Amino acid sequence: MPLAPGFPTVGIVGAGQLARMSAAPAAALGVRLRLLASVADESAAQVVPDVVLGSPSDVEALLRFAEGCDVVTFEHEHVPPASLRALVDAGVAVRPGPEALLHAQDKAVMRERLSAAGLPCPRWAVVTSTAEVEAFADGAWPVVLKAARGGYDGRGVWVVGAVEEAGPVLAGLAEQGVACLAEERVDFTRELSAQVARSPSGQAAAYPVVQTVQRGGICREVVAPAPGLSEDAAVAAQDIALRIAGLLGVVGMLAVELFETADGRVLVNELAMRPHNSGHWTIEGAVTSQFEQHLRAVLDLPLGSPARLAPLAVMCNVLGGDHPDMYEPYRHVLARDPGLHVHMYGKEVRAGRKVGHVTALGADLDDLLDRTRHASAYFMGEVLE
Amino acid sequence: MPLAPGFPTVGIVGAGQLARMSAAPAAALGVRLRLLASVADESAAQVVPDVVLGSPSDVEALLRFAEGCDVVTFEHEHVPPASLRALVDAGVAVRPGPEALLHAQDKAVMRERLSAAGLPCPRWAVVTSTAEVEAFADGAWPVVLKAARGGYDGRGVWVVGAVEEAGPVLAGLAEQGVACLAEERVDFTRELSAQVARSPSGQAAAYPVVQTVQRGGICREVVAPAPGLSEDAAVAAQDIALRIAGLLGVVGMLAVELFETADGRVLVNELAMRPHNSGHWTIEGAVTSQFEQHLRAVLDLPLGSPARLAPLAVMCNVLGGDHPDMYEPYRHVLARDPGLHVHMYGKEVRAGRKVGHVTALGADLDDLLDRTRHASAYFMGEVLE
Repeated sequence: MPLAPGFPTVGIVGAGQLARMSAAPAAALGVRLRLLASVADESAAQVVPDVVLGSPSDVEALLRFAEGCDVVTFEHEHVPPASLRALVDAGVAVRPGPEALLHAQDKAVMRERLSAAGLPCPRWAVVTSTAEVEAFADGAWPVVLKAARGGYDGRGVWVVGAVEEAGPVLAGLAEQGVACLAEERVDFTRELSAQVARSPSGQAAAYPVVQTVQRGGICREVVAPAPGLSEDAAVAAQDIALRIAGLLGVVGMLAVELFETADGRVLVNELAMRPHNSGHWTIEGAVTSQFEQHLRAVLDLPLGSPARLAPLAVMCNVLGGDHPDMYEPYRHVLARDPGLHVHMYGKEVRAGRKVGHVTALGADLDDLLDRTRHASAYFMGEVLE
Repeated sequence: MPLAPGFPTVGIVGAGQLARMSAAPAAALGVRLRLLASVADESAAQVVPDVVLGSPSDVEALLRFAEGCDVVTFEHEHVPPASLRALVDAGVAVRPGPEALLHAQDKAVMRERLSAAGLPCPRWAVVTSTAEVEAFADGAWPVVLKAARGGYDGRGVWVVGAVEEAGPVLAGLAEQGVACLAEERVDFTRELSAQVARSPSGQAAAYPVVQTVQRGGICREVVAPAPGLSEDAAVAAQDIALRIAGLLGVVGMLAVELFETADGRVLVNELAMRPHNSGHWTIEGAVTSQFEQHLRAVLDLPLGSPARLAPLAVMCNVLGGDHPDMYEPYRHVLARDPGLHVHMYGKEVRAGRKVGHVTALGADLDDLLDRTRHASAYFMGEVLE
């Protein structure tokens, strides 16, 4: 019998940095974590004692992992439907549930559902041939092609400038048995992210809408709240996220990535049903971090306040550069800026891989951008003047 | 070889709630933790993978634990001098070092050293007989008797109203081979705590001075910063703490518990060379928590900013009450106050034992006191109106 009876165990499928950052609020809440990790020294497995090794496609490993968990949740979407079904059939509380999760796993299913509900999406179509791509483009190139399943961090997305470029993409996806989505390339002014949490009993909480900057399909920088976003536009974005959470029956955190256009519209780009890179600022910048909120939501505990603690928060990702040793730049970064919050993920450095992030809170946007960008660049072997 | 080369391992002797709360900043900093725990399901051992079981008085276990640690530190003072010597002799970086630590372990040594340096202490004397207690009191009863070593949370402290009461205390301590300290009972208006961090290279950081409320020798409530404390008085208290840290060569966090008197003086009560209950508010309330700062200091990393993030923070301890199950009151507490930060330690509930704490940040002292006191009382089976 545990020393603290009644306190539950949450199983997280995956042991990357999102699971790693869930360990702190779990310990604070008195909630036990169990991880399904692919290797023993994965990012989160370094900091969580209860780790089961295995793949989410190995149903036996998954069921072994789920035994003794009060609820099973995810730090990524790459869990095969058969695995989810096996969990549900075994009576495991899976949150978010397979039906909700499908909309974060399959972009075609997501577009279909959101469009049917009147939620604003870019123009889209499922395409199976170059002729269909050409018909979809109707002369308006470039067109964005997306793998309906399996993409992340810029993978699985192609911007094609002419029909000839579409052929190899379609062929590649067909070979993998993955559907292809064509979307208009939205001429956006910036990208936003609206995060909400929803619990099984229907309680919901909306975080301030943030501005995100991606490069090469990878999130680089987040400003919370999005500078210059009108109250109306912020409420509209939060409303979209809350409607999607309710429509799909999401449980846990939901991130809705949005395009903002010059004429002030917002269009849904992608969904993630878990803590998300656009919410790392909440660790220090909000009363309840997205990681704590996800745990509360999947456990059907009362949600915490999503209010921010400072006028502004800026988060910059640290990507791997040329040097495997991050400890020297780390000492420099800590020495240069005692007010910076530094998060390292314990991951092997590979070029372009997310290995950490930094956050600064304050009231002066330029100051926060300078500090977080400098730190991020310094880690990556560049120095900004 | 670790995935993140260069990042160090910190060994913590002890696996209670202080070590538990060190796990979150260690994971964020990319620092590995190893614990010396007495039992496998101790508070911190529940949330840290690398745990060695053993007692700090078992030199062999201690050396096995220290192997592979870049530095060894402590979450309590109850480490025998022979164990500390063995670590130092084996070439282990022990921080704080045995000589500094002795002043947190032995109140007689501490009083001697601080008095010699002109630091303000209550009147004190080492006493070995009732005659000496009577001479010390000189008619001014009550007198406070303290075990020079081994006390904590109100244990090892006796307020004696007459010489007859001193006899059993002296006899008990003599039997244990522990020296006895007599101190004037300070007619204090309130208790304060001044926390500073100091690194081996001499860098120091001072936290806002806080007000603490003890009942039965156990800390119940902390307000940061101490309400109504003048700037001069706050600086004087910080100065005392910084002087002590420098004088004793402290490395890591130092908490100096102080008495404030009606005539505006502050007197040193006790020292702790580790994260301290009076600093739990820093987890959410300061840029750098005391737990992160302690890790930075013992690793000789640049210190973080001790600045506070909100005008006020109030922390209330949750003590064990009559009911072993804390989960039901916990759900109530979360539901009642979405802005509250709740920390549970995963400890078995015993009457009067610290099993968690709650913190609220804001600008309205009465509101913060109401909320944290209500939550704390509710956990303990009382309800405040």
